[in-house]
Amino acid sequence: MTWLDLGDDAPFDAWTLPYGAFSAAGEEPRVGAAVGPWVLDLAPLAAAEGLDGAHLFAQSTLNPFLAAGRRAWDAVRGWVLELVTEEAHRELVEPHLVPLGDVELRLPFTVADYVDFYASQTHAENVGQLFRPDSPDLPAAWRHLPIGYHGRAGTVVVSGTPVVRPSGQRRAGGPGSSVTFGPSARLDIEAEAGFVVGTPSALGTRVPVGAFEDHVFGMVLVNDWSARDIQAFEYVPLGPFLGKSFATSVSPWVVPLAALAPARVSPPPRSPAVASYLEDGEPCGLDVEFEVVWNGTVVSRPPLRDLYWTPAQQLAHLTVNGASLRTGDLYASGTISGPRPGASGCFLELTWNGADPVRLADGTQRTFLENGDTVTIRATAPGPAGTRQRLGEVTGTITPPPAP
Amino acid sequence: MTWLDLGDDAPFDAWTLPYGAFSAAGEEPRVGAAVGPWVLDLAPLAAAEGLDGAHLFAQSTLNPFLAAGRRAWDAVRGWVLELVTEEAHRELVEPHLVPLGDVELRLPFTVADYVDFYASQTHAENVGQLFRPDSPDLPAAWRHLPIGYHGRAGTVVVSGTPVVRPSGQRRAGGPGSSVTFGPSARLDIEAEAGFVVGTPSALGTRVPVGAFEDHVFGMVLVNDWSARDIQAFEYVPLGPFLGKSFATSVSPWVVPLAALAPARVSPPPRSPAVASYLEDGEPCGLDVEFEVVWNGTVVSRPPLRDLYWTPAQQLAHLTVNGASLRTGDLYASGTISGPRPGASGCFLELTWNGADPVRLADGTQRTFLENGDTVTIRATAPGPAGTRQRLGEVTGTITPPPAP
Repeated sequence: MTWLDLGDDAPFDAWTLPYGAFSAAGEEPRVGAAVGPWVLDLAPLAAAEGLDGAHLFAQSTLNPFLAAGRRAWDAVRGWVLELVTEEAHRELVEPHLVPLGDVELRLPFTVADYVDFYASQTHAENVGQLFRPDSPDLPAAWRHLPIGYHGRAGTVVVSGTPVVRPSGQRRAGGPGSSVTFGPSARLDIEAEAGFVVGTPSALGTRVPVGAFEDHVFGMVLVNDWSARDIQAFEYVPLGPFLGKSFATSVSPWVVPLAALAPARVSPPPRSPAVASYLEDGEPCGLDVEFEVVWNGTVVSRPPLRDLYWTPAQQLAHLTVNGASLRTGDLYASGTISGPRPGASGCFLELTWNGADPVRLADGTQRTFLENGDTVTIRATAPGPAGTRQRLGEVTGTITPPPAP
Repeated sequence: MTWLDLGDDAPFDAWTLPYGAFSAAGEEPRVGAAVGPWVLDLAPLAAAEGLDGAHLFAQSTLNPFLAAGRRAWDAVRGWVLELVTEEAHRELVEPHLVPLGDVELRLPFTVADYVDFYASQTHAENVGQLFRPDSPDLPAAWRHLPIGYHGRAGTVVVSGTPVVRPSGQRRAGGPGSSVTFGPSARLDIEAEAGFVVGTPSALGTRVPVGAFEDHVFGMVLVNDWSARDIQAFEYVPLGPFLGKSFATSVSPWVVPLAALAPARVSPPPRSPAVASYLEDGEPCGLDVEFEVVWNGTVVSRPPLRDLYWTPAQQLAHLTVNGASLRTGDLYASGTISGPRPGASGCFLELTWNGADPVRLADGTQRTFLENGDTVTIRATAPGPAGTRQRLGEVTGTITPPPAP
């Protein structure tokens, strides 16, 4: 379908066409689209073509493009798809293909508010058993609404940013044991899908489920690093705070929702029936397969398709109280864990709170993260005409805490 | 001490000199300081004096001034104090006094992240008794660390913004009763002190208690509107979400920390001893007296001086895991409630969850907020030489939810 020779094993095909912010040596950062092993440098291309929105790409973040709205998103995607599929554009395009290896990828958008949900039933049940063994697995509200909370927007970082092991207060052992301060001993990941808001909404109004595609621009892969010992001590009654706020990594490439159209699936059946503001007519689930790689070993394959609450329902819930949206809002699914073995989206579940270590390909064993460990989360989804598309990756390496 | 005739009952004296963002008819918004019944229009004044930082005031928000750092804050305060105390400046200053009635006050700064603490012991104990009658009043971690969570930065609004009654899912009665969707029937306030970060910090580093004044610019009054029925249903295990995220009002005038020097007091004794990163050598408590006015009737006088965890400790805790600060970060104390009667910072406590209604001056009774109700929170503190300074106010009126 493309006149480009993408080579074997290219990070992206010519359908996905995700957007990101890059800087090439000595030049101002700007917005591009990824295709094969290149960044398509959109600013000079759009200028050469005399496009109205050319200024949207001569920017250090995606935010102005996000704010331009769905018609602009659709028009730009149509234009880029044409550039890479019709060979007539070869002469125009080739000078603006920058090898990915020659650029630095930046945080693709300035995050306004960051919300994290808890939408995987298997994850919620597992965490309930581990953290609250004397209570029902699922919190009382869980089947009524997508439970969520606000995270720290200022510590959302781009893939590749080192993750400094956080310190905090935690118990030496079980409930009632002594409280000490020091580096987290139970540092974990959370493999999640994140959704990026483009079109804002007014305070005091709601965004219905059906308006999902008018407001949400696309998806990133998220690793919501979590310090389980700090979190377990602090989270009653106001939720996670220091256990999560030290870093959340996102992939540098934002996959437009339009590219995920072939991945649409029906979500699992819900019982009891959902409140009317959460009813979803169209299939709003997404058949995205994640892959968690720990120091080079694939340890888990979490499936997004099992998510109990879809991204459209999460958005409707987030705004049903009249809370406004801003361009750059990010909301994530929460840890994605499937009901099958080998489908856990965090190591708390994968190792059953450390009781069942994982053996990596180099022969080492792991329960939680050690300094120097690298975790990469990748994802794929159905593409057009039976193909499978790659959706990028988010990676990070743990570094020791600084001397106090 | 000032050559200005501030008149009787002026909103601010010539010591407090808080900063805000205002717009006068037909002019670009800019930064000013409040003195008596006027806004001191700093941009033309600074330009006339040829000050280096004059551009900091020709801005629509305080953020550039906040980012300029403590030396700039001290220099500007010294300059403004001199302008209003030395009569030699009368001719320069008088043309730049704009009556407060002629301006629109704006959200004074763009909020980066918003964090809310839970630092009043009386409030935490009362809420524990009301929300969790079968558990100890204080959560297990409460005396070890300042419990806090992230709120929604995008719905922080300036005083005077109407507050639309939020809708959400809540139980008809006690635990196990039916879950329905609709407008909150238990809409409440929270009287709080908010602290505004000027100087950022790097990811992976800590801000010690002693660096409080290097990073925090000043204080605002906060009303963290809360829908208790929505909050009670949703908050396990990830904390408050829709019950809080619909609106948080702040005063338009940011009181610089330097103006609060005469209000410094020692915090209450702490037991057990706090972790070393939370040890505070200097008296970092603040003797600020709040006043909650419901439809014109003063119903409560919450005292900030009783706060168990000081703002300096809150900041040290917020960053001890390596979380970075950004200019415009806002963190609030949580509801301020004193141990004496008539000192509750929210109506949940004041009316003991509705069991003990409040009688207002017009003869009406209230438990939670009705549509059309107005709540104004004011505060005062010791000023220099035995004076008492006013710290402004934050107000809001409840409007009905829109038709779905």
